[in-house]
Amino acid sequence: MSMIKERLLENGEFIEETLEKLLEKERLGSGKMAEAMAYATLDGGKRIRAFLTIEFARLFGACVEDCAYYAAAIEMVHAYSLVHDDLPCMDNDDIRRGKPSCHKAFGEDVALLAGDALLTYAFEICASAPLSAEKNALAVKTLAQCAGAMGMCGGQEIDLLTNCPDYESLKILHYKKTGGLIAAASLLGYIASPLEYSEEIADMIREYALSIGLAFQIIDDLLDVRSTTEELGKPVGSDEKNGKKTVLSYMTEDEADRIAESLSVNASGIFCEMENSGIICSLPEFLLKRTK
Amino acid sequence: MSMIKERLLENGEFIEETLEKLLEKERLGSGKMAEAMAYATLDGGKRIRAFLTIEFARLFGACVEDCAYYAAAIEMVHAYSLVHDDLPCMDNDDIRRGKPSCHKAFGEDVALLAGDALLTYAFEICASAPLSAEKNALAVKTLAQCAGAMGMCGGQEIDLLTNCPDYESLKILHYKKTGGLIAAASLLGYIASPLEYSEEIADMIREYALSIGLAFQIIDDLLDVRSTTEELGKPVGSDEKNGKKTVLSYMTEDEADRIAESLSVNASGIFCEMENSGIICSLPEFLLKRTK
Repeated sequence: MSMIKERLLENGEFIEETLEKLLEKERLGSGKMAEAMAYATLDGGKRIRAFLTIEFARLFGACVEDCAYYAAAIEMVHAYSLVHDDLPCMDNDDIRRGKPSCHKAFGEDVALLAGDALLTYAFEICASAPLSAEKNALAVKTLAQCAGAMGMCGGQEIDLLTNCPDYESLKILHYKKTGGLIAAASLLGYIASPLEYSEEIADMIREYALSIGLAFQIIDDLLDVRSTTEELGKPVGSDEKNGKKTVLSYMTEDEADRIAESLSVNASGIFCEMENSGIICSLPEFLLKRTK
Repeated sequence: MSMIKERLLENGEFIEETLEKLLEKERLGSGKMAEAMAYATLDGGKRIRAFLTIEFARLFGACVEDCAYYAAAIEMVHAYSLVHDDLPCMDNDDIRRGKPSCHKAFGEDVALLAGDALLTYAFEICASAPLSAEKNALAVKTLAQCAGAMGMCGGQEIDLLTNCPDYESLKILHYKKTGGLIAAASLLGYIASPLEYSEEIADMIREYALSIGLAFQIIDDLLDVRSTTEELGKPVGSDEKNGKKTVLSYMTEDEADRIAESLSVNASGIFCEMENSGIICSLPEFLLKRTK
């Protein structure tokens, strides 16, 4: 466990430095929009997605520098999705990561534009990584598929428009909305590696990612009822307040704990026979036990 | 002139068919968001951008099929930008292309998401074109640069936040906001061609694109005062109503006419010594004389 914590810190610092460089004024201008792009992206969250990119890259033989642009692109897409999800016409959240959400700090117009520009920039960065054009084109395609209409955007649509009549429909929502980008993050690490791309390995990575993505969301729902706003850095009880279905709309906390654990155990097993898979195999349990 | 009209019609039909195939339910799902994506993109406008992609591809030796995905991606990015620009927190326009704007037809939340998904899908399509990975990665990078913080999004920021104290600042706005995507459209046609990419040719294409982009915007401003809502398919006089600066805030109609003509003449000359450049060289004059 302590090894993961160290690695999270180390990778987190690396990705922060990379993002700072990529988001500097020389590249994006010095107006409010560029400021909002940096505000929404930097100093942000647990960086689990970038962590997955880096650790899958390592697992398959790349060094961390090889996948830096892909990891940064993933975090930019994550940041854009939070900015747009927080807007009044979507989830209408005023606080994000313990500070005012982007539209509260910059206004709705600038936040909307900053989200658009972040998403656009993520693809530019993906296409500009210091890897082969084949890898970069595949990374763009993979990221777009996981983040688009059939992935993350599709998940947000279900979240907005349906009221998830059962756990199965909530699961589809989470597979798309959370799992989509976690899958992209993991796949981009693999793509950055020297290995030739195989659909068989990609499918294993998707299964791992979707399992931890769903477990991650179940834990989020549990923390929303078990934690305080201070501990969590965002308002607790907001799902209930907004009338949103959570995993606890369909089962008890005990049952949710058990499903999260079973998903976590499943994910841990997928790569356990590979050499140097320690981090990838112990990450699910680490995420299961997180308190924020 | 009649040759351009025919070619506009022919290319327009081709791009419409391509977009219809790319936006079908099998690819994007059957929910409201996918419906909004098609609503915002299909049956839309003059298709000047796709026209430029196709004609630059032809000029440099490609056939129209080679650049179909790039042309479709450009039109998707254009459609997304209109959907987001029309939102209440941006320009708050209720009518677009003679019908209710996307958020009027589908609600703000679905329109915002449909825009996000269209932008994302455009990059997927660019990266999936039946051309080399080198070309596709370069097309993604070029499109992202022209559409992002230093291009179209940056132009929209200036439009929202500054009040353009002089014509020079309005020009920068138009270079970025309109010129950015027109440059991307033209460059992607060139990238789709068999020619090896040279910065020298890319610069000529940028000059052509920025000239016709600025002329296009000046004509738009002139039509806004000279035309009727029925002729134009969108409300006239809206710039004045919204207190927006137009080229006519700084000069007379005669002066604006003269600048548009001079930009058009400049653009026409750039490729006039190349074989088969008839369409590219006569497009500027055609756009100058448009009435809607």
